[in-house]
Amino acid sequence: MNFTEQLWQDIQPIYDAILNHGFVDELMTGRLPSATFQYYIQQDALYLTDFSRALNQLAARAATADDSLQFTQFAQNAILVERGLHETYFALYDIQPETAKMPACFAYTNYLLATTSLQSVAVGAAAVLPCFWIYREVGKYIYRQAIRENPYRSWIDTYAGEAFDLSVTQMLALTDRFAEAASPVEQDRMRDAFRMASRLEWYFWNDAYTRHRWLV
Amino acid sequence: MNFTEQLWQDIQPIYDAILNHGFVDELMTGRLPSATFQYYIQQDALYLTDFSRALNQLAARAATADDSLQFTQFAQNAILVERGLHETYFALYDIQPETAKMPACFAYTNYLLATTSLQSVAVGAAAVLPCFWIYREVGKYIYRQAIRENPYRSWIDTYAGEAFDLSVTQMLALTDRFAEAASPVEQDRMRDAFRMASRLEWYFWNDAYTRHRWLV
Amino acid sequence: MNFTEQLWQDIQPIYDAILNHGFVDELMTGRLPSATFQYYIQQDALYLTDFSRALNQLAARAATADDSLQFTQFAQNAILVERGLHETYFALYDIQPETAKMPACFAYTNYLLATTSLQSVAVGAAAVLPCFWIYREVGKYIYRQAIRENPYRSWIDTYAGEAFDLSVTQMLALTDRFAEAASPVEQDRMRDAFRMASRLEWYFWNDAYTRHRWLV
Amino acid sequence: MNFTEQLWQDIQPIYDAILNHGFVDELMTGRLPSATFQYYIQQDALYLTDFSRALNQLAARAATADDSLQFTQFAQNAILVERGLHETYFALYDIQPETAKMPACFAYTNYLLATTSLQSVAVGAAAVLPCFWIYREVGKYIYRQAIRENPYRSWIDTYAGEAFDLSVTQMLALTDRFAEAASPVEQDRMRDAFRMASRLEWYFWNDAYTRHRWLV
Repeated sequence: MNFTEQLWQDIQPIYDAILNHGFVDELMTGRLPSATFQYYIQQDALYLTDFSRALNQLAARAATADDSLQFTQFAQNAILVERGLHETYFALYDIQPETAKMPACFAYTNYLLATTSLQSVAVGAAAVLPCFWIYREVGKYIYRQAIRENPYRSWIDTYAGEAFDLSVTQMLALTDRFAEAASPVEQDRMRDAFRMASRLEWYFWNDAYTRHRWLV
Repeated sequence: MNFTEQLWQDIQPIYDAILNHGFVDELMTGRLPSATFQYYIQQDALYLTDFSRALNQLAARAATADDSLQFTQFAQNAILVERGLHETYFALYDIQPETAKMPACFAYTNYLLATTSLQSVAVGAAAVLPCFWIYREVGKYIYRQAIRENPYRSWIDTYAGEAFDLSVTQMLALTDRFAEAASPVEQDRMRDAFRMASRLEWYFWNDAYTRHRWLV
Repeated sequence: MNFTEQLWQDIQPIYDAILNHGFVDELMTGRLPSATFQYYIQQDALYLTDFSRALNQLAARAATADDSLQFTQFAQNAILVERGLHETYFALYDIQPETAKMPACFAYTNYLLATTSLQSVAVGAAAVLPCFWIYREVGKYIYRQAIRENPYRSWIDTYAGEAFDLSVTQMLALTDRFAEAASPVEQDRMRDAFRMASRLEWYFWNDAYTRHRWLV
Repeated sequence: MNFTEQLWQDIQPIYDAILNHGFVDELMTGRLPSATFQYYIQQDALYLTDFSRALNQLAARAATADDSLQFTQFAQNAILVERGLHETYFALYDIQPETAKMPACFAYTNYLLATTSLQSVAVGAAAVLPCFWIYREVGKYIYRQAIRENPYRSWIDTYAGEAFDLSVTQMLALTDRFAEAASPVEQDRMRDAFRMASRLEWYFWNDAYTRHRWLV
């Protein structure tokens, strides 16, 4: 079993909790309140800008020009996807841009920025991986299960894109390669980072579902 | 009114919410469950190590050797306080060290690390200020109001220390000086950072009070 | 006079020293020894990888998604140009890849990486600007003056590219915008950074011309 | 042979070049021109401020609170030594403070700042080690060999200090421990960083000896 397969095993309970989350269920059946979807898309747009920054930091720290280019292209893509959200879904679902990160988005983005600033590239890569990988798997799941007549159909269909699939494959290969060159101590940190970011994925959906806001 | 006085005005509702929080109340009356106090001290120890790292980052970025030395000494002090917790309160209140940050501690420390990595020194200084300033004010408040016979007396008394008072005064002077040299845009970012970190102070007490743990 | 025009005035003596440098002269007349040209191209390839990292760091620190995307695209382009060097000139001029940075390349790249790690985005932008701007101006100068029959013709012609011209224009606009929002202290640091990086441009040509190597 | 002993073997030619350098020789015989000594002290003061920043960055990135505290104390000490230079030698030898780094100081400090920003703690530790270690060894050598009646006697005597000796021992122990936990790839980067910083030590003395200034 290669390193990323082990990572996936580790987070099985978290992944199951995401698949069984009310947000995912109501998205597939089309019953998700539009205010909930709006919250999600708003926070996703804020998330993507910082996700791109985290990838830029990995690009700055990567040992080879090839890896640096790879992370730079991921960073560019994250912002282009963020723009796509604005140009398509903000219009389509009548969403106002939000400038304030809510708790889960705040915790997740700061974790990624702090980790990619202060930890090694290998650990940083493990931290950004769940956003690629879990998102793809959840996306495929939703795509397969969602009912045809669904107000969120247009958004669900973007998951079928092959471009994103390729990114995930590249990101998995990078992570496995980093793990091979890492010492056991560093591999443990990679596992911790992957698990933490996976947990934050769940919180991201959960905050949207509960339209969670700051208490003070 | 100088800049830091404005900052304090801005966070009045948050500060009031902290003073009126059940944690503070029960600490003063001695009714705080020991498990709650343990949670608080455990998370505080984890917090201080990263708070020290944030101060190290400000030391690395400060423009002058004087400011750099100041932040270095704050960083050193934060770790020495963390050690003091271990040597005194972990023993006194029979507390086991905890290695996992709970949600509020996690969000707060990653915010400080990300901000001091990526924002200007002035904005970073505004972000670390609440931990100095609010802590001193809450500490004085608790010290004045707490009943004499209190299982937490020994810990409450540390608040009366003059060494910490001097640090807060120095940190306020630094922040006012940075604000004077900052552009209006940067001053706005300083205000946002101060407000956000103040909010995270409230969450820190609130997580302890509710012994909040990760949901997945 | 806008800010970047002032910057250009400041470095007039350095710019003149570059235009009058033996490297530039011999390149235009085609008399430049091929070993000198090889040294230059080898160091340029090493420079570009780190220049890209510096731009990634600015992308990570930029305040808006638009600016972040801009720096990300500059970063991507720098690596693509580096690859172009390998695919075209390393083959054409029979150049072996070099892995060791010589003194000027070493000083310049570490300066850019340290500045974009530790200083504000505005100062970092001023530090990366000379590589865009001086390069374009020197390139145009060489393109206009170079004799037709020139072993370096193919390389000189790349200077006429409009894509690079657009990048320089964008980078100038960014720098002027950052300067407008900057405090006077920060503007001074921008000026210092621009002057220092311009000086390092001269050293880069001079190291190539003298095929300078480490003394120990 | 432990890791740091291997490091020392690697740099034998550089270390010999330092011991045999005119600067060291003339310092011991007291024939060093006072303008040369002034240049050296001025640059050393500028160096130490940035050396302290580099150590603060390692403190921010260190995995444990103990290591973080250790680097913080080294950082503090570097600034205190810088202040000592001002208070003692600037007065004693009538030296004006200099604000501009000359080439070797510039290259060395930017290298340390970039490396401690972007590389792992282990590699950063290897990069700051020569300033501790070579300095101690050269200091002992000068102290033993220097003639009694020497205008630089007061400065030479500081080398005999035991406080600095302890720092070097701690720094060596840290580096060996980091090397043990590092993967082979990372150990190679540690070796490269140690060698490069050792080379920059030689340049630092050489710039002083030649009172080297920027050419443009």
